[in-house]
Amino acid sequence: MGLTIGVDIGGTKIAAGVVDEDGSILETCKVPTPATPEAVVDAIADAVRKVSTGHEVDAVGIGAAGYVDDKRATVLFAPNINWRHEALKDKVEQRVGLSVIVENDANAAAWGEYKFGAGQGHDDVVCITLGTGLGGGIIIGGKLHRGRFGVAGEFGHVRMVPDGLLCGCGSQGCWEQYASGRALVRYAKQRAAATPENAELLLSLGDGNPDTIEGKHISEAARGGDPVAIDSFRELARWAGAGLADLASLFDPSAFIVGGGVSDEGELVLDPIRKSFRRWLVGGQYRPHAQVLAAQLGGKAGLVGAADLARQG
Amino acid sequence: MGLTIGVDIGGTKIAAGVVDEDGSILETCKVPTPATPEAVVDAIADAVRKVSTGHEVDAVGIGAAGYVDDKRATVLFAPNINWRHEALKDKVEQRVGLSVIVENDANAAAWGEYKFGAGQGHDDVVCITLGTGLGGGIIIGGKLHRGRFGVAGEFGHVRMVPDGLLCGCGSQGCWEQYASGRALVRYAKQRAAATPENAELLLSLGDGNPDTIEGKHISEAARGGDPVAIDSFRELARWAGAGLADLASLFDPSAFIVGGGVSDEGELVLDPIRKSFRRWLVGGQYRPHAQVLAAQLGGKAGLVGAADLARQG
Amino acid sequence: MGLTIGVDIGGTKIAAGVVDEDGSILETCKVPTPATPEAVVDAIADAVRKVSTGHEVDAVGIGAAGYVDDKRATVLFAPNINWRHEALKDKVEQRVGLSVIVENDANAAAWGEYKFGAGQGHDDVVCITLGTGLGGGIIIGGKLHRGRFGVAGEFGHVRMVPDGLLCGCGSQGCWEQYASGRALVRYAKQRAAATPENAELLLSLGDGNPDTIEGKHISEAARGGDPVAIDSFRELARWAGAGLADLASLFDPSAFIVGGGVSDEGELVLDPIRKSFRRWLVGGQYRPHAQVLAAQLGGKAGLVGAADLARQG
Amino acid sequence: MGLTIGVDIGGTKIAAGVVDEDGSILETCKVPTPATPEAVVDAIADAVRKVSTGHEVDAVGIGAAGYVDDKRATVLFAPNINWRHEALKDKVEQRVGLSVIVENDANAAAWGEYKFGAGQGHDDVVCITLGTGLGGGIIIGGKLHRGRFGVAGEFGHVRMVPDGLLCGCGSQGCWEQYASGRALVRYAKQRAAATPENAELLLSLGDGNPDTIEGKHISEAARGGDPVAIDSFRELARWAGAGLADLASLFDPSAFIVGGGVSDEGELVLDPIRKSFRRWLVGGQYRPHAQVLAAQLGGKAGLVGAADLARQG
Repeated sequence: MGLTIGVDIGGTKIAAGVVDEDGSILETCKVPTPATPEAVVDAIADAVRKVSTGHEVDAVGIGAAGYVDDKRATVLFAPNINWRHEALKDKVEQRVGLSVIVENDANAAAWGEYKFGAGQGHDDVVCITLGTGLGGGIIIGGKLHRGRFGVAGEFGHVRMVPDGLLCGCGSQGCWEQYASGRALVRYAKQRAAATPENAELLLSLGDGNPDTIEGKHISEAARGGDPVAIDSFRELARWAGAGLADLASLFDPSAFIVGGGVSDEGELVLDPIRKSFRRWLVGGQYRPHAQVLAAQLGGKAGLVGAADLARQG
Repeated sequence: MGLTIGVDIGGTKIAAGVVDEDGSILETCKVPTPATPEAVVDAIADAVRKVSTGHEVDAVGIGAAGYVDDKRATVLFAPNINWRHEALKDKVEQRVGLSVIVENDANAAAWGEYKFGAGQGHDDVVCITLGTGLGGGIIIGGKLHRGRFGVAGEFGHVRMVPDGLLCGCGSQGCWEQYASGRALVRYAKQRAAATPENAELLLSLGDGNPDTIEGKHISEAARGGDPVAIDSFRELARWAGAGLADLASLFDPSAFIVGGGVSDEGELVLDPIRKSFRRWLVGGQYRPHAQVLAAQLGGKAGLVGAADLARQG
Repeated sequence: MGLTIGVDIGGTKIAAGVVDEDGSILETCKVPTPATPEAVVDAIADAVRKVSTGHEVDAVGIGAAGYVDDKRATVLFAPNINWRHEALKDKVEQRVGLSVIVENDANAAAWGEYKFGAGQGHDDVVCITLGTGLGGGIIIGGKLHRGRFGVAGEFGHVRMVPDGLLCGCGSQGCWEQYASGRALVRYAKQRAAATPENAELLLSLGDGNPDTIEGKHISEAARGGDPVAIDSFRELARWAGAGLADLASLFDPSAFIVGGGVSDEGELVLDPIRKSFRRWLVGGQYRPHAQVLAAQLGGKAGLVGAADLARQG
Repeated sequence: MGLTIGVDIGGTKIAAGVVDEDGSILETCKVPTPATPEAVVDAIADAVRKVSTGHEVDAVGIGAAGYVDDKRATVLFAPNINWRHEALKDKVEQRVGLSVIVENDANAAAWGEYKFGAGQGHDDVVCITLGTGLGGGIIIGGKLHRGRFGVAGEFGHVRMVPDGLLCGCGSQGCWEQYASGRALVRYAKQRAAATPENAELLLSLGDGNPDTIEGKHISEAARGGDPVAIDSFRELARWAGAGLADLASLFDPSAFIVGGGVSDEGELVLDPIRKSFRRWLVGGQYRPHAQVLAAQLGGKAGLVGAADLARQG
């Protein structure tokens, strides 16, 4: 097989790209994400048709947030787009005349990093994506672990704190409430409100009101030595690393890959995550340790991964 | 391959058994568990030689508590027997002249249940063993998931409660502190001490002192309607089911198998575990649910599973 | 002193009442709660003037949600009405020409119950009010304990769960997130969504959708034997009783009084609270136990208490 | 009244001292703590008789660990000495011919600090003692708050973590499991075991094995900049400060006094406790803050306080 197309459905834009066997993106196309579920299907088809012009393309892989069934055909439930048992594969195939597979977006990103990014050379990899929320994907023996019903790897909703923070999923104490971009902002707001004298730089980057703190302020302030910003990253890392330690007890991979917007800060966040991981790893003195690696593909991991999964058939 | 031998190393006895391709045990032999690490190796070899007499045996599988390396040869760390980097495979092979593999005992039991017990007909199964502690094993796509370093499936030490109960592993809040036979006894003791009027039957089965409550008392009292005993099982089930819900988010198997001494109580404990599992399953209304099944092989699962894993080579 | 006026500032109505020395309300008057902070002051004055007509009144006591300073004059912070350092005593005194004291509304209710309700005969009483949130008041040696700065007894915001549910106060894990009318509704919604087959009666009282469950449905369903409704009350009681056990370790009163809308259900909620209290009381076998009593004055406690506190001067 | 005697019952020694109205100790006497409960009574009497020789003494105050009844006469329960409903006041009065009162030792220490130490000038003070465990005492309106049954101020056993660490009291998650000398040592051991490269100085002060770390090593290492030692103090302070924030919500004192062996480290521990207190104080921007002060009397607070309470009669 030669070229395939990967599709990434974002909150504001749908990106489609032509990807070759080496994971290189030859051409991309973006269209706005429409408001209605059915219009999203049309927009995906549009983007695929546009980007494929002039390329000989064999298949399409679509990464979608939510539960995708075991046949990689139906979106069982999408929290953002209002999809319930949406037969996305069939609908897009009818529209574009190409073979289509659908995959959970975090799974697709994990696969992208495994094949073309930080996971190269590993066979057993667990990826976590620290974005607005927390997603992830699992590679076991060189294969994406989808689970019996297609919904494995929902890391973000593992319970970290009994009776903990309410999550959008309806449950409480979910990991993504403690380790994600949204959590980072909450940490910073709470700390800046309680001890503004330790957040002078951080507060100066916004309008001085803790409620207006944004993620980018925290990163910049942390690099500038702001105590609250640094402590907020440390708190995030405390929870991220503790969760990775649990995943090591369960999956025992050779490497963890940490991606997502939060991980763009590099060692600022990865170093404390590694420390926390070691702190909580059970039996750490008696077993080999998994590496904790930074993702390499950035925001392209999902598109490239979806395209490659389509190539696998 | 025809017959193989499975070995189960218990705290007081080492059991060896000749097992056929259907998981039937043709003959067993038990020897006392010696006190010193080296003597345990000799005792294993003795048991294997004795039980193999008169059988044509192809290989030996040993189930051992602790971390076993990725080559299924070396026990990295055994918490009960004082083994550290013990080359168990080589030592036993030299003594018995048969090919040997070593496997974590909970993994062996999971495999036994998968092949010959409750897991038949499933390809993706997660087993938990509620014994004194909590162990488990993972079957993915019909294969035992051992992890890159051989130490996957250490369910008992996943953190359920941040800053929670101290565990023998040195960590805090481990699942086995909340869902295990030992936890059940603690629940009953605490409740009987606080409200003895609700534990009359339970206390009457011992000497009336909450500190002397044993697991068998709790089972008997629960069947007799003792409120504290029933509540203790419910508390155990609350934690067991919540943990299974997390495992569903991660592994998405088609079935969970619950084994170990606690599960011998059958529906008394399985029914509340199923309820708790459903209570905590994230996105339960949008996805197929894994079944929660009772183990079928009882205490023989480990021996049978180890023998069968040896047969696989 | 003879008659005094008590004022209760609710979300929709401001009630003023003329109260005699025995805590009897001779006459009441209600006016709508205005939208702006300053208008609320005028409305309080209006209500006081109206209700006092024809009575010889000596003083006015106002119960207000929020922090009231140690001089019982200034509302430091009111979460509902937008008051910050509001000189409420002075403003109302100027308008009505009577001596005024301001008190936290839950303190006023606690005082009412202590003097004229369930607390009669006790000198050391802790009251908790399970309404939409959780409030409370402390009587030590027959005196209301206001604290050095006037803000003692903020029970609702004691941390019960580290990293727990987000609270309107900006903190996390506050007691009122686990023991209050709002918590009760959350418990019922979550359980009904997860296991609708155990909530048939409960769901039938609304439109069948778990999201529309209200407090009154839960009470009615619990009386009808609905498992989810009963379990929701039990969960509330688990947290309420555990918190009372902590308060016993701290204050060691002779009685707790449980008031607020949730307590209107009587033994349905009080019995499990008592059980939970005993379950968690530290050293329970070595010390006298405080009684856990139902409040007797219902929604009038705050008004009556505020009037009586004004009488005390 | 002129001189009184204070008695402090320690694990290895019983100290008696003659104390004047200004809290000065004129003379002290120590005797070994005997092994049997009855012998302890005799030893107390011996110490009192010896130290009183040559002084005109009016009364005796005894500080004892455990629950003391509301008459300050009977030790209801002492966890260390095997006393159950021990009529200590009567027994000692018969032996020494002086009026005796018995008080909980942490209450006595709190009173000592209030009258002659850090609490001078305050009327509402809450003291916590960070020793091996965590004790405390409450002063409200210039009076020791003993509670209706004499057992108020048992701070150490307030639940900080649901389902948390097991406590000697039989409960779980008690504050003293997270904020005490014993907790500090646990923090350091866990961290040094997980990341020995961050505990080089700390480990060098013992024999290099994390299990042998003692409190004095942690203090010395923290002063020397050892990351694990500093982090251990920070973790202790995190819990101590969060608990003080809860106590502020409940008692609203003008000052907290932090005593006990851990507080001997001064700002090393007090500064992070203050930070943590501010971090967790609910509504901190809307209310006056209590001061967090270091205790001034050290190990003498209990003896001096007991003597002064005897003087009060």
